[in-house]
Amino acid sequence: MNTAPHALASRLRIVLVGTQHPGNIGSAARAIKTMGLSRLVLVAPEKPPNAESYSLAAGADDVLAAAMTHATLAEAVADCHFVLGCTARSRRVALEELMPADAAARAVARAGQGDEVALVFGRERTGLDNDELQLCHAAVHIPANPEYSSLNLAMAVQVLAYELRLGLLGGAKGAAEGAPRPHPVTAPSVDEDPDSRTDPPATHAQLEGFFGQMAEVLDLIDFHKGRVPESAMRKLRRLFLRADLDEREVRLLRGILADVERTVRLGPKPG
Amino acid sequence: MNTAPHALASRLRIVLVGTQHPGNIGSAARAIKTMGLSRLVLVAPEKPPNAESYSLAAGADDVLAAAMTHATLAEAVADCHFVLGCTARSRRVALEELMPADAAARAVARAGQGDEVALVFGRERTGLDNDELQLCHAAVHIPANPEYSSLNLAMAVQVLAYELRLGLLGGAKGAAEGAPRPHPVTAPSVDEDPDSRTDPPATHAQLEGFFGQMAEVLDLIDFHKGRVPESAMRKLRRLFLRADLDEREVRLLRGILADVERTVRLGPKPG
Repeated sequence: MNTAPHALASRLRIVLVGTQHPGNIGSAARAIKTMGLSRLVLVAPEKPPNAESYSLAAGADDVLAAAMTHATLAEAVADCHFVLGCTARSRRVALEELMPADAAARAVARAGQGDEVALVFGRERTGLDNDELQLCHAAVHIPANPEYSSLNLAMAVQVLAYELRLGLLGGAKGAAEGAPRPHPVTAPSVDEDPDSRTDPPATHAQLEGFFGQMAEVLDLIDFHKGRVPESAMRKLRRLFLRADLDEREVRLLRGILADVERTVRLGPKPG
Repeated sequence: MNTAPHALASRLRIVLVGTQHPGNIGSAARAIKTMGLSRLVLVAPEKPPNAESYSLAAGADDVLAAAMTHATLAEAVADCHFVLGCTARSRRVALEELMPADAAARAVARAGQGDEVALVFGRERTGLDNDELQLCHAAVHIPANPEYSSLNLAMAVQVLAYELRLGLLGGAKGAAEGAPRPHPVTAPSVDEDPDSRTDPPATHAQLEGFFGQMAEVLDLIDFHKGRVPESAMRKLRRLFLRADLDEREVRLLRGILADVERTVRLGPKPG
């Protein structure tokens, strides 16, 4: 399906159940808006959004103002086709447990099929209760430090929203092709980054011209002092080849060498 | 290298520069502890950690209490071998720009080789300034909503810490299996070259010493000829940072610069 990220995002809702601190509702609104999401749903918050919520929402007050409130999670997800419950690691309910990236990939894929999708976050202290978890198709678990796994609620929302955004950015394509997100641990080659290098890479001949001039300058400044020049030149070649110079950089370095030659022959500029 | 995640984590520091709100320092401490990290470093915070910081740190008060404070970013990263700067998308400094997962993978790989690594976060409103970005080997960009990219500082720390944790969980395995060092830009395979890269990578302080001497030599040979020196120095910094110099290479380059200085002052060797 050829669907723009924005259209996919409109099928993804973030549901906060029984939130205790209104500030967290505002921080969650900000978190989801930074990641291009806009649908916040509240289920029986202990206190409704207040001035602190709006203050912490910062420029995401539109998301907060548009948030629907329901009395129960069942109502909040009544029209959903896919519901994910965010949990601390839990064996209470034998739900399939997904890593955030996998959960996001599935959520985006379902949205790409036109499905309504909910990501559900429980209470700050006690999470989702068993009845609520039973409404979920799968659980999502942020792999936190087992010795201190207490993510702030809005922080957990931020992490999941971030993964959803990665899914949406790759997802317009990925969902159509069913491609999984490239795994975070492998590093794609930087050469693929289109705007990291603007000038063309130096040619072999340009590099050899630079190395030739460098050898002359090393002689001129008596760098080798009787040692064979090959050792230093080999190290310098390796270093500069590794740097993958572009044409402009070779011109810059050759300009420096030319000024060294000129200054050695003519002496330093007076003053 | 057979390195446990905990040992790797101890080489990863989170640096907060010029933080305006002490509460964010506390929230950042909590965020990094939930992800199994423990090293928080502060650079010239507008206000030192206070009661609000400790309140928001929750159970991460140990991380907060252990946080070192430095006057400048240069001091905070003086012993670092790899420094990543977190930025909103920016063309001000043409640093290589990494996605969080790629940045984390590289950071963990470097830590796995015994290197000290810093992830640097700027001020809430204005981020890192250009001089600070110049100290970084690469930039990290969280791909936020372009229409509302204002992540709270601690939220950005949480996202990067989460990616570091994924890297550490995957990375401990990679390191134990002798995964090769992924080279930042070009990758001449280290295995193919018997005498390449046995020396330790240069520290930040060693590189700054080299750049300082380079600036002096450029003045001595009148390289700038009335132009502002910053442009050339920025290009040279980028080039040499990309080359990922080791200690021996820095000594070699500084030896060349010293001979240029000597020869300019004393004249070429007769004959």
